[in-house]
Amino acid sequence: MDARVRPFARAETIAVGSEMLALGRVDTNSGVIADRLATLGIDVIARSVVSDHLGHVEIAVRTALQRADVVLITGGLGPTDDDLTRQAVAAAIGREMHEDAEQMARITERFAKRALAMPEINRRQAMVIDGAVRLDNPNGTAPGQWIDLGPQAIALLPGPPREMTPMLDRLVAGVLGARAGEQRTYSRGLKVAGRSESSVEATLQPLYATWRAAALPVEATILALLGRIELHLFVRTADPAAAAAALSRAIAEAATALGPSVYTTTDESLEDLAGHLLRAAGWRVSVAESCTGGLLSARLTDVPGSSAWVDGGVITYSNALKTVLADVPAALIAEHGAVSEPVALALAAGVRDRCGTQVGVGITGIAGPDGGTDAKPVGTVFIALHTPSIVACRHAHFVGDRVVVRHQSVSAALDMLRLALTGHDPVGLAR
Amino acid sequence: MDARVRPFARAETIAVGSEMLALGRVDTNSGVIADRLATLGIDVIARSVVSDHLGHVEIAVRTALQRADVVLITGGLGPTDDDLTRQAVAAAIGREMHEDAEQMARITERFAKRALAMPEINRRQAMVIDGAVRLDNPNGTAPGQWIDLGPQAIALLPGPPREMTPMLDRLVAGVLGARAGEQRTYSRGLKVAGRSESSVEATLQPLYATWRAAALPVEATILALLGRIELHLFVRTADPAAAAAALSRAIAEAATALGPSVYTTTDESLEDLAGHLLRAAGWRVSVAESCTGGLLSARLTDVPGSSAWVDGGVITYSNALKTVLADVPAALIAEHGAVSEPVALALAAGVRDRCGTQVGVGITGIAGPDGGTDAKPVGTVFIALHTPSIVACRHAHFVGDRVVVRHQSVSAALDMLRLALTGHDPVGLAR
Repeated sequence: MDARVRPFARAETIAVGSEMLALGRVDTNSGVIADRLATLGIDVIARSVVSDHLGHVEIAVRTALQRADVVLITGGLGPTDDDLTRQAVAAAIGREMHEDAEQMARITERFAKRALAMPEINRRQAMVIDGAVRLDNPNGTAPGQWIDLGPQAIALLPGPPREMTPMLDRLVAGVLGARAGEQRTYSRGLKVAGRSESSVEATLQPLYATWRAAALPVEATILALLGRIELHLFVRTADPAAAAAALSRAIAEAATALGPSVYTTTDESLEDLAGHLLRAAGWRVSVAESCTGGLLSARLTDVPGSSAWVDGGVITYSNALKTVLADVPAALIAEHGAVSEPVALALAAGVRDRCGTQVGVGITGIAGPDGGTDAKPVGTVFIALHTPSIVACRHAHFVGDRVVVRHQSVSAALDMLRLALTGHDPVGLAR
Repeated sequence: MDARVRPFARAETIAVGSEMLALGRVDTNSGVIADRLATLGIDVIARSVVSDHLGHVEIAVRTALQRADVVLITGGLGPTDDDLTRQAVAAAIGREMHEDAEQMARITERFAKRALAMPEINRRQAMVIDGAVRLDNPNGTAPGQWIDLGPQAIALLPGPPREMTPMLDRLVAGVLGARAGEQRTYSRGLKVAGRSESSVEATLQPLYATWRAAALPVEATILALLGRIELHLFVRTADPAAAAAALSRAIAEAATALGPSVYTTTDESLEDLAGHLLRAAGWRVSVAESCTGGLLSARLTDVPGSSAWVDGGVITYSNALKTVLADVPAALIAEHGAVSEPVALALAAGVRDRCGTQVGVGITGIAGPDGGTDAKPVGTVFIALHTPSIVACRHAHFVGDRVVVRHQSVSAALDMLRLALTGHDPVGLAR
């Protein structure tokens, strides 16, 4: 790095795409970029979303260069007429473009591999701005570009997050990291299941003041997400050891205050954790799902390698299948109703027997919008767990629409697995 | 309204506040504004979030005035040092500010009512830009401001949504509505399964020119999403009947060009559509899922009321369960491998028999990251469909990571259901 050049401190993101300006559309890339840049101590000072219009994108780039050291532009690198980010950036910085032969070969090869003819419009994706470094995209046809302007730089990144994120990570590990200053923002977090945001907030409140007043202040943010609460802690310093010590201490204090409702301080998901605990115990799991309709199984098998602990299970959406596939006595359903503790327990026991696994999970409930009654309103869910050492059922009341109730049910089931496998009461903690 | 002045067509929103630049924070005001302006036929062409820095906000305002007819700025109207929207706008348009006596009286009164002394810093909230119209804020201390610049205008609105939204609604009903043209933007769309973005684009390319050259031009945008491609069409006119006719004609032309890969022109999801077609046929479905691990069933049961056509099924993640739960002969698995056409067909037939449904779906494949071989790489998926009238299996090669392969497999299965139920070859179209 050129010693005369000031390190990058301020960044700006531009998301290109008219579709993201519609109601309900969110540009998720900008948050991911802000997060990654924070690790380099680079602040995002502005973010914008701009429609697919050459002039508007060009103005956005010029504006960003007035305020920021580094400008990261996502989207508009596809092959269509709407994809004009390359052109707009070239115009904004007054440079020409050329066709990159190596990139052209890659695109042709990618189509050939899938036995497809390359549409002529894809040539556009081989256009590189003069002086730019091409950034390879193993997950798509649109390469990125990195333009070093001396004291400033511009990155062109693809719009799809699964293409953008790996490319960003390589920039952060490489040229972008090399241009950042000594100060870094370090962060750690923890995740909580089975408690509300306000309950977590109330528990942590007394710790905040201590953290802020410390020699190396620790800043805290709480985030309420579907099925979990996350606590994020940040410190900013040029001393990595001091950062690690301050964050470890604060995380330990928060974990002690919050107790076993904290399921990870190392960013694992509930399904990761349940899976690893099952594997460690040498147990395999099967599930019988009614209202969640396969979502629990889908989440358990989201984890790569999950065939080492998941056998499968049954989806007993109809009452008849509860009997046919999981041996729930029809009389039990008639007596207690399909949404009941005895039926949830029978589903867990039944699927465990059928599949020959050590652990069985049964879920039955009312996800809505229809099917609720005064006695069993929408959101009523029974989740049963049957292991070699415990048989338990949680009677939950979730608040929200169909998507929320189903998602919360699955998270609660995974958390029951986690609690049981770590020697806690799988039902007692929920509040 | 001055007849010489062009009606407002393009708007831009600026949200001021460093706190909104953090990960996981969303600026909800901009979506609400876009929604309200759409009813006036005013398009939001860009939105940005800017940190609380005088120069940055000033640049954002200047930039917006280069592109937009009307600029709506939210936030930064409070009493603290961080609240510098008023100053930034005044600087951007080269005007002074003055203390508004009436507003000062209101603020004083508001504090008096709550028996509080007014902090001196609240005087700042009585500062009004020369020539601006004050917008009353019944829900807070920060008034808004409306600045008529002749051909353009700027609105300063408070950040808290419950203060911003009522003020915006009054603007829309009042001065903003009066400045909007007769023209409104109308839109329609269609969704495509089983084709790539560039294949859709290449098919539609010849139509674009015709649409754009029409007396009432139709603009098109293509969106590539996981498992589907969406085409959005827009026209802008003062004549609702002409809009409907132009959009219908263009949608019909696109649908003809794209053929049966178009699954909806009325915004239905594949799972909605498959469900409604099953119900119309009087058929019930059951599924046997291996690599998708419950995702297909979860998506089928995402649809409210899906118990009318979904019975359930089995998740046969382990080979043993393929035999135990879906009667796939162990010898068949030994001979062809678990990921094979015969096993997919046996899964579909087996689950259909077990569950007593008219339709059975079987999915087996390699979602990755492990398990791929040269003969059957990651992304190899067999999807079998067994109905009273058809038995078919698609051998698919999906490109992407575990999440993508699983999601594409589910979309492909739903699309096979859709095609079979509408009298098309469920396998032949995929490309």
